[in-house]
Amino acid sequence: MQIENDHWLDQLKWNADGLVAAIAVDHKTNEILMQAWVNRQALQLSAEEGRAVYWSRSRNKLWRKGESSGHVQKLHEIRLDCDGDSLLYRVEQLGDIACHTGRRSCFYKRLDPTGWTDADPVLTPPEEIYRN
Amino acid sequence: MQIENDHWLDQLKWNADGLVAAIAVDHKTNEILMQAWVNRQALQLSAEEGRAVYWSRSRNKLWRKGESSGHVQKLHEIRLDCDGDSLLYRVEQLGDIACHTGRRSCFYKRLDPTGWTDADPVLTPPEEIYRN
Repeated sequence: MQIENDHWLDQLKWNADGLVAAIAVDHKTNEILMQAWVNRQALQLSAEEGRAVYWSRSRNKLWRKGESSGHVQKLHEIRLDCDGDSLLYRVEQLGDIACHTGRRSCFYKRLDPTGWTDADPVLTPPEEIYRN
Repeated sequence: MQIENDHWLDQLKWNADGLVAAIAVDHKTNEILMQAWVNRQALQLSAEEGRAVYWSRSRNKLWRKGESSGHVQKLHEIRLDCDGDSLLYRVEQLGDIACHTGRRSCFYKRLDPTGWTDADPVLTPPEEIYRN
């Protein structure tokens, strides 16, 4: 998407690290897929390229989702919340897998009376996703 | 929900402020409602009381969602993501309104070629929600 100027990027409340939260959901089913972080550049690139780009806090670099897994997230819509510090990415999840564990969603641990339980199946083993 | 011991609370990756992100979605439709924060006590109380309890960073206190608006979030399920720093609250949103602006969801600003556009209607004016 081409946007008139950069004013929209100034309207976010970036935290002390220059980041805001970004939540990816399936654009058709609303199913939540993952939550990551973006800096100003990652958000701008997401809008320009029409795919989810995050800031990896562990690797300290831009992270074009799917660059190693192939599990690209095609962006259908970007939304911002009322207080300007949380983004919603409505995406088409290529390969149907968002999580590095090979599951559909990163939110696969369910709280049960015994504690956290893995509640969703692994669709593709990570060693098959990250072959190269 | 009663949980065996507090070990499950030690398995989260609390940030430097002792918080993790918590995303509330409608338990039936998966529609995203809001994103807030919880500390250890807020999460424990959420599980115990079966309603969403957050930590308000602006007011620096526990925030039982709905305590002033009546828009309580009844918890159906709590999930944790793969890297342990983001929670999913699957809730029933009483009053159908999660946002303090009187909208269904806090994520009502859509990115358009002209910038952020208010894309969702106000269902109840805030002055009617917060009468007292």
